[in-house]
Amino acid sequence: MTISAIIMSSKNLVDKMNEEMQAMVNELKLKGVIPGLAVLLIGESPASQIYVRNKQKRAQSLGFNSKVVRYPQEVSEQEILREIKQFNQDDTIHGILIQLPLPKQIDPEKVLNAVNPEKDVDGFHPVNMGKLLIGEPDKIACTPYGIMKLLEYHQIDIAGKTAVVIGRSNIVGKPMAQLLLMNDATVTMSHSKTNHLAEIAKTADILVVAIGRGHFITKEFIKPGAVVIDVGMNHDVKGKLIGDVKADEVAEIAGYITPVPGGVGPMTITMLLYQTIISAQRTI
Amino acid sequence: MTISAIIMSSKNLVDKMNEEMQAMVNELKLKGVIPGLAVLLIGESPASQIYVRNKQKRAQSLGFNSKVVRYPQEVSEQEILREIKQFNQDDTIHGILIQLPLPKQIDPEKVLNAVNPEKDVDGFHPVNMGKLLIGEPDKIACTPYGIMKLLEYHQIDIAGKTAVVIGRSNIVGKPMAQLLLMNDATVTMSHSKTNHLAEIAKTADILVVAIGRGHFITKEFIKPGAVVIDVGMNHDVKGKLIGDVKADEVAEIAGYITPVPGGVGPMTITMLLYQTIISAQRTI
Repeated sequence: MTISAIIMSSKNLVDKMNEEMQAMVNELKLKGVIPGLAVLLIGESPASQIYVRNKQKRAQSLGFNSKVVRYPQEVSEQEILREIKQFNQDDTIHGILIQLPLPKQIDPEKVLNAVNPEKDVDGFHPVNMGKLLIGEPDKIACTPYGIMKLLEYHQIDIAGKTAVVIGRSNIVGKPMAQLLLMNDATVTMSHSKTNHLAEIAKTADILVVAIGRGHFITKEFIKPGAVVIDVGMNHDVKGKLIGDVKADEVAEIAGYITPVPGGVGPMTITMLLYQTIISAQRTI
Repeated sequence: MTISAIIMSSKNLVDKMNEEMQAMVNELKLKGVIPGLAVLLIGESPASQIYVRNKQKRAQSLGFNSKVVRYPQEVSEQEILREIKQFNQDDTIHGILIQLPLPKQIDPEKVLNAVNPEKDVDGFHPVNMGKLLIGEPDKIACTPYGIMKLLEYHQIDIAGKTAVVIGRSNIVGKPMAQLLLMNDATVTMSHSKTNHLAEIAKTADILVVAIGRGHFITKEFIKPGAVVIDVGMNHDVKGKLIGDVKADEVAEIAGYITPVPGGVGPMTITMLLYQTIISAQRTI
């Protein structure tokens, strides 16, 4: 068989949003406001280093005031909380991001709760999660928010469709399910304890996969013509970046599929920058 | 056919919880604390009057300090916000409840957000909704919380089961879905825009119905042996209280079914009182 699915690259959308965001930043600067993004990076994890560098690079290319504060792995929770408090009060900072994962001595709940919800551009604060659950979202977790933008850009109908989300993390799966529900999909939340996962996945017109297991989703999980969103960022034995979806065989029956890399990934940083700009706009 | 379903009355559980709560209140009193519940009631809606009277009666029977503040239908939002602020600061009040629905001039979001989350015994504040979505619940919406207690009391396994929630209100459907998910069910959130609803409902080992349409759910929606939770409180043409589920025919194939009245209803007030007591305990 041959590939029949439309490949949902995010390239054109990211370019378009970059242009729009550049115009927004320019307008803000005319009013004397420079969007400020502060990133707290703890420890030496190579992956975190790369993520933070990418965020900083893109923030700077748009002309943000971009600050990265680095801490050793053994930094105390108290010191992190003190730094967050300072950024909360700092008028030149509109977004605060704590790069996850955190070392053991730091309680992620405590730290994420300390961020002013107005500056919580990652959308992880309970107030922002709660607003999402209530259906009045303000700051939204960036990966699912980016997926919604990508679906919209590719003109995928959501209302009345059957959506299945695999994975129930606070960062992707749970907010994703709420966004699809808000848009009138019928949404199934599935996870590691789900029985007959392939059978359930196969009911999906829209399948979002965020489980962190390379090539786990094969064509047995796919309804012909389905929209398949692959959030996975795994490395195969050769170190190559691969998604949670076995793209080559799934693309033979899916209607749409996001590539890895070049699909969901670039949307996450884009939405982070976008929400920082919105936050900066509100200070005027 | 005959009724095969076990009728999941809440009577015995409510009696048991009442005893437990009475002991908790007695212990609090020894420490000089009387659980205080303040209810704000706006307008003359007969249904709201009845609900509030029932809440007050049960709070008083447990020895609570129970306050009901009544306002005319045309009261200003500002006055309600002022009253909430006073109760937030009042150390003798541990739970604040705003009886819904509110008149048009009052923004429910604004009013519910004004309640101190620690005293939000209804679990409607965004912070409490957010904690639930994150999987670290504190105050939980009382009806779904009561349903979880009822499932537990009747020793219904949830982990790995297929659950379908019909209805996506902030008060019942959405928090219900999160609680079932937290307990490792695979959860489908369905609603008025769902296509093929009967087919989807029929996949459910646990079906929770909260749509507010009398006798809407017939046996075509039911998987044989399923646990059917009926949240509906509707009145038929003769004024009789009926559920969302056509209980007589559904009971022929379901494994368990909650009666209306006497099922979910009494659990809601019970959990409200319970959360007020917990809130009072924390002040010690």
